[in-house]
Amino acid sequence: MLITFEGIEGSGKTTQIELLYNHLKEKGYEVIKTREPGGTAFGEALRRIFLHENLNVLPLSELLVFMAMRAQHVEELILPALKDGKVVLCDRFVDASYAYQGYGRGIDLGIIETLNRFVTKGVRPNLTILLDCPVKKGLQRKAANVMDRFEKENIAFHQRIKNAYLKLAGEEPKRFLIVDGKKRVEDIETIIRKKVENLLKNYGI
Amino acid sequence: MLITFEGIEGSGKTTQIELLYNHLKEKGYEVIKTREPGGTAFGEALRRIFLHENLNVLPLSELLVFMAMRAQHVEELILPALKDGKVVLCDRFVDASYAYQGYGRGIDLGIIETLNRFVTKGVRPNLTILLDCPVKKGLQRKAANVMDRFEKENIAFHQRIKNAYLKLAGEEPKRFLIVDGKKRVEDIETIIRKKVENLLKNYGI
Repeated sequence: MLITFEGIEGSGKTTQIELLYNHLKEKGYEVIKTREPGGTAFGEALRRIFLHENLNVLPLSELLVFMAMRAQHVEELILPALKDGKVVLCDRFVDASYAYQGYGRGIDLGIIETLNRFVTKGVRPNLTILLDCPVKKGLQRKAANVMDRFEKENIAFHQRIKNAYLKLAGEEPKRFLIVDGKKRVEDIETIIRKKVENLLKNYGI
Repeated sequence: MLITFEGIEGSGKTTQIELLYNHLKEKGYEVIKTREPGGTAFGEALRRIFLHENLNVLPLSELLVFMAMRAQHVEELILPALKDGKVVLCDRFVDASYAYQGYGRGIDLGIIETLNRFVTKGVRPNLTILLDCPVKKGLQRKAANVMDRFEKENIAFHQRIKNAYLKLAGEEPKRFLIVDGKKRVEDIETIIRKKVENLLKNYGI
């Protein structure tokens, strides 16, 4: 069971993954949490230089590095965990490439699809939780921290990402759960928990 | 005019690029030298973590990172230099991906070709100088230095690379100049210089 979390910067993904992770652990599930970009030693090393060093990076190069990380992530961590019957919670996955590098940076969606299919070896999320949140609210939440290369992009960029996510969710309503990120943390937690517990029950896990 | 240098580890590429670079500069040519992996700030940052950190990296991830660097390298450095009429000397380029990730690591050559075509935007070397050198001799030359992730591979790996380069050169005899890396440095220098000067004359540069 692979559950991915998507949303703009500051949409509250990290908090909700943590809450769901702790809840599932308490319930006795074997669960791991991971993230993209990153997730493996290789991915985290790339993430460090990629997000925080002030480098000039082309959209295409950005896409290819993210795909390199994803290939490693799927093969080294996600696939083995799924084969062991674990629940995998992942902060961003395939959809983020369409949203950020596709709708955000203008790379052809067909290329992203080809690469995604190629690096994920057919692994698809069983459920994708989209935390939909107004751009300004998201960025305000992040403002206190050091901003990384995506967070430094302008409002219009983040608005495109927000719209892209809603479009992606609209195309696959069965896979996506859209949650209003303006709700209180506890309310979002409850909505997610209910959906995930139902899903686990349906899958007989 | 793009001139690339290929060959196994320790084949003497770096020395010969330096010699040719200095010679062309003295002759008054506008010339730059660069390398892969690397060549740009982004590429060099990736090169550092990629070659020298002890990370577990899948062949496919390795390929995608190298392609990301190449996309950046072509767009940021090689294409602008070629447009300015400069002579570009590059230590490894497209052929290295076939040799190392294809023949060396076993990745499908068709995938490499597709990615190469995609990231180079049609830029092809006018001349590729292959310094062909016995594997043991090459590795001995490197032995004094700290070995990077490719240099640590076994003899059989480097033998595959050597054979792959000869195969690639055989397929495109017009583009490749094969030079016997066992010759003395000065003799190799003379052979390369003659070939390059003829080429520049033919192109009217």
